[in-house]
Amino acid sequence: MKLSYDQIKEEMTRVLVKYGMDPNSAEESATLFTENTVDGVASHGVNRFPRVISYIEKGYIDLAAKPTLVSSLGALEKWDGNLGMGNLNAKQCMDRAIELAGKYGIGAVALRNTNHWMRGGAYGWQAANAGYVGICWTNTQPNMPAWGAKDRRIGNNPFIIALPRKDGHVVVDAAMAQYSYGKIEEMKYAGKQLPFPGGYDEAGNLTTDPGEIMKTWRVIPIGFWKGSGFSIVLDMLAAGLSEGNSTYEVGKLGEDEYALSQVLIAIDLKKSSSEEYAEKIMNDTIADIKASVPVSEQMRIMYPGEPELLTRRRNLENGIEVEDSVWKTITSF
Amino acid sequence: MKLSYDQIKEEMTRVLVKYGMDPNSAEESATLFTENTVDGVASHGVNRFPRVISYIEKGYIDLAAKPTLVSSLGALEKWDGNLGMGNLNAKQCMDRAIELAGKYGIGAVALRNTNHWMRGGAYGWQAANAGYVGICWTNTQPNMPAWGAKDRRIGNNPFIIALPRKDGHVVVDAAMAQYSYGKIEEMKYAGKQLPFPGGYDEAGNLTTDPGEIMKTWRVIPIGFWKGSGFSIVLDMLAAGLSEGNSTYEVGKLGEDEYALSQVLIAIDLKKSSSEEYAEKIMNDTIADIKASVPVSEQMRIMYPGEPELLTRRRNLENGIEVEDSVWKTITSF
Repeated sequence: MKLSYDQIKEEMTRVLVKYGMDPNSAEESATLFTENTVDGVASHGVNRFPRVISYIEKGYIDLAAKPTLVSSLGALEKWDGNLGMGNLNAKQCMDRAIELAGKYGIGAVALRNTNHWMRGGAYGWQAANAGYVGICWTNTQPNMPAWGAKDRRIGNNPFIIALPRKDGHVVVDAAMAQYSYGKIEEMKYAGKQLPFPGGYDEAGNLTTDPGEIMKTWRVIPIGFWKGSGFSIVLDMLAAGLSEGNSTYEVGKLGEDEYALSQVLIAIDLKKSSSEEYAEKIMNDTIADIKASVPVSEQMRIMYPGEPELLTRRRNLENGIEVEDSVWKTITSF
Repeated sequence: MKLSYDQIKEEMTRVLVKYGMDPNSAEESATLFTENTVDGVASHGVNRFPRVISYIEKGYIDLAAKPTLVSSLGALEKWDGNLGMGNLNAKQCMDRAIELAGKYGIGAVALRNTNHWMRGGAYGWQAANAGYVGICWTNTQPNMPAWGAKDRRIGNNPFIIALPRKDGHVVVDAAMAQYSYGKIEEMKYAGKQLPFPGGYDEAGNLTTDPGEIMKTWRVIPIGFWKGSGFSIVLDMLAAGLSEGNSTYEVGKLGEDEYALSQVLIAIDLKKSSSEEYAEKIMNDTIADIKASVPVSEQMRIMYPGEPELLTRRRNLENGIEVEDSVWKTITSF
């Protein structure tokens, strides 16, 4: 069915308030779930919302908890998420990183004991909307094999870099796995092959067949050994800087994913050079890339963040498609 | 031939002094070229040295120039490399980032008008040796197509993350291209196929054949669209923060690669949590990864930075293999 931004936001706000969240926080959190859905990432919006509710019921997410400052080295602070709502914890800590960047040029917050932040890109867009560069990442439960391994012991650890730009922010939001679990399942149910190999089959061969990958869940990191390496150091940094859980320790908590570690960094790009220079660099580069020879006539070359922006505009204009079953579940809470 | 660390370093020091560099700087720069060679990255050590000399002769590299501070926002500084020797500029700016991290917890230097830093990992190892986390990247000349494009307009922009660890630092040093130009050429001359597709042939199909890739030089980014996105934002950040050249502008300078932009960040991991905690996180994670089920009996699962460490130890013990023709060129300067 097609729904409006306000319909989606108000319904999720209602549910969170019913589960005991204060109305302001509920609206703020519901706004993030809604924006993810509007930007085309329903997997971390409405579709994920029922699982979040189940985590509240299981006691992993404490709706009354707020993040607290643990210690500060000046431009680098350590916060404890106290197992509060993941998207609000991350948002508040990116806001704090932005404050620190306003003071020192660069600011960083290491956050422990937090919950799934849903779409990492949200905090990149948040920093860019405030006029700052945002860089952030999270660790996850073990869901990908290290390079050379069959069993899953490292995380797909999404990594985000966002730059503020007047005509549309430039935002990369990429997990260290080539394809998400959601994407692989979606392609299987659609009866399609992945455009590029996404994992290994039971015989140990790379395959584009999502059904074969689902038998092993041996997904591949981006760039093979390179993405495996980045996953490992991003996890070590998030857990080490925050004195929080590593992916290894999150795995010991069981099947469910909670008590994660994250890093949120902001940089004052516009004051480091000048707003005019930064805009020129970004616009010249985008114009140059768009002037490339495309691989096919159908291919439209886009800058990072452009697809989300186009999806957002289309959805806000035409309404947002939500699966009937998902909406039925949410409205039944 | 096999040479010792001191033989290699002394010979390159001699050449740099002959070309007009002051003896202390020459030794410092030659040390970096030597260490890259010892760590198994001769492509950015002895093998690259003759091209560096040609850049000195062409006037791209000013052996007398030192980096100068342009402006400061506190924990974020902007420096101008004044087209000095690239490896010394990067080393000095990482040292400065470490000083800033010692004061603020995190410190960053944006560096413009610098030259090729050779192996980016060197500055990660440098930070880790000083007990700090090092994060750094550089832009390059246009050498890779953006995702969806045939012609090369973005850079392979190496990205480095290094963590200090008592029993061996954890270091990822990865370009945003799946394979370097050097690797593709090396495999062609060895008559071998790449282990995974590294680019496109003339028909537009992904191929593992290095000779076919060399006909198009249409190399692929790590993770396809993901590495393309990271390349673009890393370039924009380096050029934007430093008020320096973007890859687009470096491309306009012609065939040769100079006047680059870089970012060097240091973080005080050991003070953010505690040295004991950071060591435990890294050691537990490494032990867990090494306990993985390997894909084959021959596969040894290593942590990022371990291969370089093993190569370094072996080379320091047994002597360093240098191609006769390369050594002949260097000694003839």
